[in-house]
Amino acid sequence: MSNDETVVETIVRAEVLNQAVDQLLSVVDEATITIGKNGLSTAAVDPANVAMVKLDIDPGAFESIPSGSITFGTSLTKLEDYLDGATNDDPVLLAFDTKTRKMRIEHTNVEVDMAMIDPDAIRNEPDLPELDLPCTFAVEAGVFQDAVERSTLVSDHVFLRADVDDELLEVRGEGDTDTIRVDLDSEDLTDASFGENSESLFTNDYLVRNEDNIDGLLKPIPDDTVIECDLGTEFPIKSRYSYADDLADVVWLLSPRIQNA
Amino acid sequence: MSNDETVVETIVRAEVLNQAVDQLLSVVDEATITIGKNGLSTAAVDPANVAMVKLDIDPGAFESIPSGSITFGTSLTKLEDYLDGATNDDPVLLAFDTKTRKMRIEHTNVEVDMAMIDPDAIRNEPDLPELDLPCTFAVEAGVFQDAVERSTLVSDHVFLRADVDDELLEVRGEGDTDTIRVDLDSEDLTDASFGENSESLFTNDYLVRNEDNIDGLLKPIPDDTVIECDLGTEFPIKSRYSYADDLADVVWLLSPRIQNA
Amino acid sequence: MSNDETVVETIVRAEVLNQAVDQLLSVVDEATITIGKNGLSTAAVDPANVAMVKLDIDPGAFESIPSGSITFGTSLTKLEDYLDGATNDDPVLLAFDTKTRKMRIEHTNVEVDMAMIDPDAIRNEPDLPELDLPCTFAVEAGVFQDAVERSTLVSDHVFLRADVDDELLEVRGEGDTDTIRVDLDSEDLTDASFGENSESLFTNDYLVRNEDNIDGLLKPIPDDTVIECDLGTEFPIKSRYSYADDLADVVWLLSPRIQNA
Repeated sequence: MSNDETVVETIVRAEVLNQAVDQLLSVVDEATITIGKNGLSTAAVDPANVAMVKLDIDPGAFESIPSGSITFGTSLTKLEDYLDGATNDDPVLLAFDTKTRKMRIEHTNVEVDMAMIDPDAIRNEPDLPELDLPCTFAVEAGVFQDAVERSTLVSDHVFLRADVDDELLEVRGEGDTDTIRVDLDSEDLTDASFGENSESLFTNDYLVRNEDNIDGLLKPIPDDTVIECDLGTEFPIKSRYSYADDLADVVWLLSPRIQNA
Repeated sequence: MSNDETVVETIVRAEVLNQAVDQLLSVVDEATITIGKNGLSTAAVDPANVAMVKLDIDPGAFESIPSGSITFGTSLTKLEDYLDGATNDDPVLLAFDTKTRKMRIEHTNVEVDMAMIDPDAIRNEPDLPELDLPCTFAVEAGVFQDAVERSTLVSDHVFLRADVDDELLEVRGEGDTDTIRVDLDSEDLTDASFGENSESLFTNDYLVRNEDNIDGLLKPIPDDTVIECDLGTEFPIKSRYSYADDLADVVWLLSPRIQNA
Repeated sequence: MSNDETVVETIVRAEVLNQAVDQLLSVVDEATITIGKNGLSTAAVDPANVAMVKLDIDPGAFESIPSGSITFGTSLTKLEDYLDGATNDDPVLLAFDTKTRKMRIEHTNVEVDMAMIDPDAIRNEPDLPELDLPCTFAVEAGVFQDAVERSTLVSDHVFLRADVDDELLEVRGEGDTDTIRVDLDSEDLTDASFGENSESLFTNDYLVRNEDNIDGLLKPIPDDTVIECDLGTEFPIKSRYSYADDLADVVWLLSPRIQNA
């Protein structure tokens, strides 16, 4: 493949790319992605403006640093399909032809030429708001997901409550007749710093939906990955995790449902 | 949890409770259950009056004997959901508050407060009829289930025929053009006592249905559990099995379909 | 079972019969089959006249040579159901009663009496056309199937192109905006003889459909079975494979889709 000025090329391990695509798919079908000397960066907000994902991959996570810079739009569902079969350390070559606006993907024995989407046709990348939240906890994604899924048995929503005195996070669903509650205490939380009692209500679908092409925010995260979350009262929950030897950083944010509108 | 007079508490291993719930679900969605010093007892009949289940668990199967007695109604599908994740020897605490009419369930890291249903709102528990049937056989539930499922390939019904001379149980489906038959002989039957040739016809769905929330009567029984069955001619089939070290007894009964109405 | 003149009997291992039924099901629901001293022979063409299968099993693949000859029609979906549970070397007894027009099937503990279909009610067996195609290649069925399935991501059709110079088979899907391509080269092809550059276009469903009762032609073939294929330009693809220690021979043929009609 030629390396003239109109082509930006890079090689990245499949697992680095796959995790990014899966996490973006938890909020949108199409995204704008920038790849260049600084690595990969992207951010997306769901159509209802309730959930955001921001993702930054350090150039050190690439097998070959991108030979230029490009911002392109892409269908994430198609990209996921085209990457199917490439796993773990399989090298994935991406080559962007800025003239033809085609992205070439090569992995295993597969070659794809995929039309890029004009970034102007995709919703602007959101800015993540600065938040100063009183409670912070760290928990394995699988433990948190299991607790939230319990609440789906009785309600479409889940209360997250940080209890300062008992030093626990209560994950609670309240149905019309039944209530289900999982307490995550110091055994479940790998870290916790609760400044004040805090409680917010969230929509379960955004966290643990598992249907069609869009999963909940927690679904793409490996069970044993530790995520760090900030919680307040009637404030968004903000969460961070890293992968690829901490060279890839993900931040997501979910707005609360107003309890007494 | 307080132990005053309005609260009845008990602890039972998850597998003891789960099997009871699953077997009741083969005939009804909601049931009336009595828990007390004598253990647990319940019985249910399906809406069409075709299948009955009676279940008695000896107090010796409980980790802590109930601290009083209560008869309550419950949604079995919800109860199954709330017990999800508790398996094998996991202790399940049940606490019934007779004032609030709430049942508290605690297992693993889960706490549920579940509204009980007024027993008067649930169909009366049936009385199992006394039957004196000429044939008795014992068979592993999995072997019997496989044989009955064959008949579903050609018909909605299955003939069960005890043959005195050949000492075998014929499990037969008769379709419009095709017939399928499995003979369970002395190798398949762990016990057999056939007083006279007997044949009855049953509806397959009641035995091996596997859809929605209601399974057939045979579905919840572990494959290697030996069930004892009584068979007559155009009479119900009556079956018994035990679990929890024989401290839990299940009896079910299925009415025949009249062959020449 | 009596062996008088009206009954033709034979015994065949389950895996020999199952593979034949599964491959026939890739083109038709009902087929006409001849069983006799010369073994088993059958051929079928799909309703749209696009795909054909021809199958011949040597009498040496039978555990007992058929005691006569019979040509009968059968529902392949029912036959597949009735053979369910018989695997590998399990002996399957087939007995055809030419008076009652019933086929008796016995395997494991199952006995089936199945009505045969009048062969005159089933479409005539097709004759496979003689073809002299310039390119031949051999490939494991699983490798070929994976390559074709890639093309389904972008199109309902797949281009197969034999490249003389590069000595590779290109398996290509062309969508409205995206193209996906897998190159099978000397590492993937166990044999290749390309007389001239050749390309034909085929409908994916006929090769890799996986729904309802009818699978694509490649689906029933074990992944590690080597199939030999002949390819030309805008000509049918013709494929051969053997099983049962080469005592069973399968030939299938798929017509091309005209590219510029």
